[in-house]
Amino acid sequence: MKRPLSSWILVAIIVILSAALIGTLLFVKNQPAQVRGVPALVVIAALEPDSSQWGLNFPNEYSTFLLTEKNNVRTAYGGSEPFPHLEDDPHLKILFAGMAFSKEYNEDRGHVNSLYDVRNTDRVNEKTPGTCYSCKSSDNPRLWGEMGMAEYDKTPFADLGQQINNPIGCANCHDANTMRLVVTNPALEEALAAQGKDWKTFTRQEMRTVVCANCHVEYYFAGDGKYLTFPWTKGTTVDQIDAYYDEVGFKDWEYPDTATPMIKMQHPEYEMYTADSTHYLAGVACADCHMPYTRDGAAKFSTHDVKSPLVNPAPACGACHTDVNYATSRVTVIQQAVADTMSATEDALVDAIEAIKAAADPKADQALLAEARTLHRKAQLRWDFVAAENSMGFHNPEEALRILAAATDMARQAQVKALKAVGQVAGN
Amino acid sequence: MKRPLSSWILVAIIVILSAALIGTLLFVKNQPAQVRGVPALVVIAALEPDSSQWGLNFPNEYSTFLLTEKNNVRTAYGGSEPFPHLEDDPHLKILFAGMAFSKEYNEDRGHVNSLYDVRNTDRVNEKTPGTCYSCKSSDNPRLWGEMGMAEYDKTPFADLGQQINNPIGCANCHDANTMRLVVTNPALEEALAAQGKDWKTFTRQEMRTVVCANCHVEYYFAGDGKYLTFPWTKGTTVDQIDAYYDEVGFKDWEYPDTATPMIKMQHPEYEMYTADSTHYLAGVACADCHMPYTRDGAAKFSTHDVKSPLVNPAPACGACHTDVNYATSRVTVIQQAVADTMSATEDALVDAIEAIKAAADPKADQALLAEARTLHRKAQLRWDFVAAENSMGFHNPEEALRILAAATDMARQAQVKALKAVGQVAGN
Repeated sequence: MKRPLSSWILVAIIVILSAALIGTLLFVKNQPAQVRGVPALVVIAALEPDSSQWGLNFPNEYSTFLLTEKNNVRTAYGGSEPFPHLEDDPHLKILFAGMAFSKEYNEDRGHVNSLYDVRNTDRVNEKTPGTCYSCKSSDNPRLWGEMGMAEYDKTPFADLGQQINNPIGCANCHDANTMRLVVTNPALEEALAAQGKDWKTFTRQEMRTVVCANCHVEYYFAGDGKYLTFPWTKGTTVDQIDAYYDEVGFKDWEYPDTATPMIKMQHPEYEMYTADSTHYLAGVACADCHMPYTRDGAAKFSTHDVKSPLVNPAPACGACHTDVNYATSRVTVIQQAVADTMSATEDALVDAIEAIKAAADPKADQALLAEARTLHRKAQLRWDFVAAENSMGFHNPEEALRILAAATDMARQAQVKALKAVGQVAGN
Repeated sequence: MKRPLSSWILVAIIVILSAALIGTLLFVKNQPAQVRGVPALVVIAALEPDSSQWGLNFPNEYSTFLLTEKNNVRTAYGGSEPFPHLEDDPHLKILFAGMAFSKEYNEDRGHVNSLYDVRNTDRVNEKTPGTCYSCKSSDNPRLWGEMGMAEYDKTPFADLGQQINNPIGCANCHDANTMRLVVTNPALEEALAAQGKDWKTFTRQEMRTVVCANCHVEYYFAGDGKYLTFPWTKGTTVDQIDAYYDEVGFKDWEYPDTATPMIKMQHPEYEMYTADSTHYLAGVACADCHMPYTRDGAAKFSTHDVKSPLVNPAPACGACHTDVNYATSRVTVIQQAVADTMSATEDALVDAIEAIKAAADPKADQALLAEARTLHRKAQLRWDFVAAENSMGFHNPEEALRILAAATDMARQAQVKALKAVGQVAGN
């Protein structure tokens, strides 16, 4: 039986439609996941360092991220205005004598300024290793992948800089294909692994804290290769970090005249916050307060204008605390107590340093003097754990005050030992 | 027109009913207020010292109050089991050398035991003034009214005891006629008035904290009349209390061998809690945690089994905190930090005392030695403000740790000054 022409036309239409459907489905299947979402406009390449590319798909996140360039406000004890700490607190030139922080120590500005600022600080010179770029650029995930971290770290700062063009950006915390939060810094991955932790098993809320630890941690440069290392194998409290540095015999610099091996602490926000702080134990992540959910018209998103919650307390504190004024008044009371206590610790450290210097006498009791120097190192390490930590104690008030009390005690004991070291010469 | 008999009967009934109604209304009007309520059974006389009388009207409150006799449980750092602090912490015999607390210092038991326990402590002797009964008996409001506080205080303890038969009870905090909370201790009323405060204007929630200050405060016995006085005219923080004692030149005792004028702190719970603690600023009263609302069948009442909330966290913490385990775990973390820091302060105080004793040399620099003694006094006063306060810092964690840090610093500075006082003799 011969089919009429109209039947053949129908079959042809069916075949064409089926082919079109299969082709479309295959195309969609091969697209990155986020393109399937409503706002998808472009495909973002894996490890794409240029945040403006990501911004095409995520305009709210990107436009708030850009605010970190100019929107730098000073708070009572920090914020992101680059005020000079050395002028604010004359103790610091004494405490950091003999190392770079006594030359320049300005408050950090927002994320977008990271590359410009690291290249324009007086702390960088011809000996600076590439490691110093580790927290400054969204080119890092790509470079770590291409070079390996060991090679990256041992490349001189000036040479490595040729391959670095972007400040901190999207690629430092996000997977380009899925947008999920990822640990990109190999030093963090290694430090977690050394504690038996695999970040790939973390919950989303845990990731909203741990990605900040890509940078907001204490670290040091291990060995001649200046290998970026987090001192976490014994744990992440200040006492465990102190024990680690003692065990590996590390020093950041030697204190002038006293030859005390010293440790400089770097912004240990992650360690301070996770040391059983009240907010951490309540399940609050860094991003909850520093990148609170924000509305722009119908859109709800995490602001990427990362900064002090005190600049923006209504969304930052108000998501949990019904009385925002009460919450911020608590911050004021707590930070005042920590600042006063920290100032007393600095007085004690300066007195200890003076006493140890005054005991520089070959006839002094050398064993007591050695104890005094060790106490100075441990006291200053603890003080700096609180001082370098960006919250004036608020991330963990009890821990900060506990540490400062111990630091003052150790500094005053160092002073006592130094006095006794000389006093015994005179027969006391 | 003559009325029929039935009319006269009706008129008589109306007259009788009216008279009965007026009589009843007059009777009710003259009754104490609480008798008008449902459970009223007896009229409680004004200032009635016998709590069992009050208990006839308020059986739930009274029966829970009676639990304070036997229901004495030890917590991690306190509670109400009378364990001996002197055995628990060997530092204390040194710190309290030369005064009664080095003889006996047991943890207090519950309210019902107050009278028995004050009469059976080794700290009481023939010189003990009547003032020591001020916080121990529900006979006090009556006696203060009859004798006046000045006369009460100067009566010898043994003599005054003849008129005292009841432990702490209802009359210490309640008005018998209206049951409202009242300040009964004249010393508290005077101390508040000196700060321009009139407790009669306080809200009910404020009263639920301030009645505890009838007793749970720092106090001293002023002058030969041993007049009960709260050192609050400059304010109620430890620094303001220190300044007050300096100004009036008071000492509780003289430290043996060093002749340092010392202050013994007494349970300053009210002062610690109201120094901008997080719970206080959030509007929480003492009674919210220590006398939480409790159910017994259909009745809801404030338990009068006053004790550590840690013994009863479900109603104590759970009224506000949905996760009671989280809340109590915070207490553990905070108290551990305070206990560790306090122990370091005690080490520093003992070292200071030893150094000052060792400097007892007429050739020592007497000005430096005097500074050392002053620093010892101020350090120990601060330590004791936290140590004698019944919460191991939890009533105000930041304030407790701030104070301990300052105390350690002062104690170590006392040690330094004492060392220098001798060292300078030898030419250093």
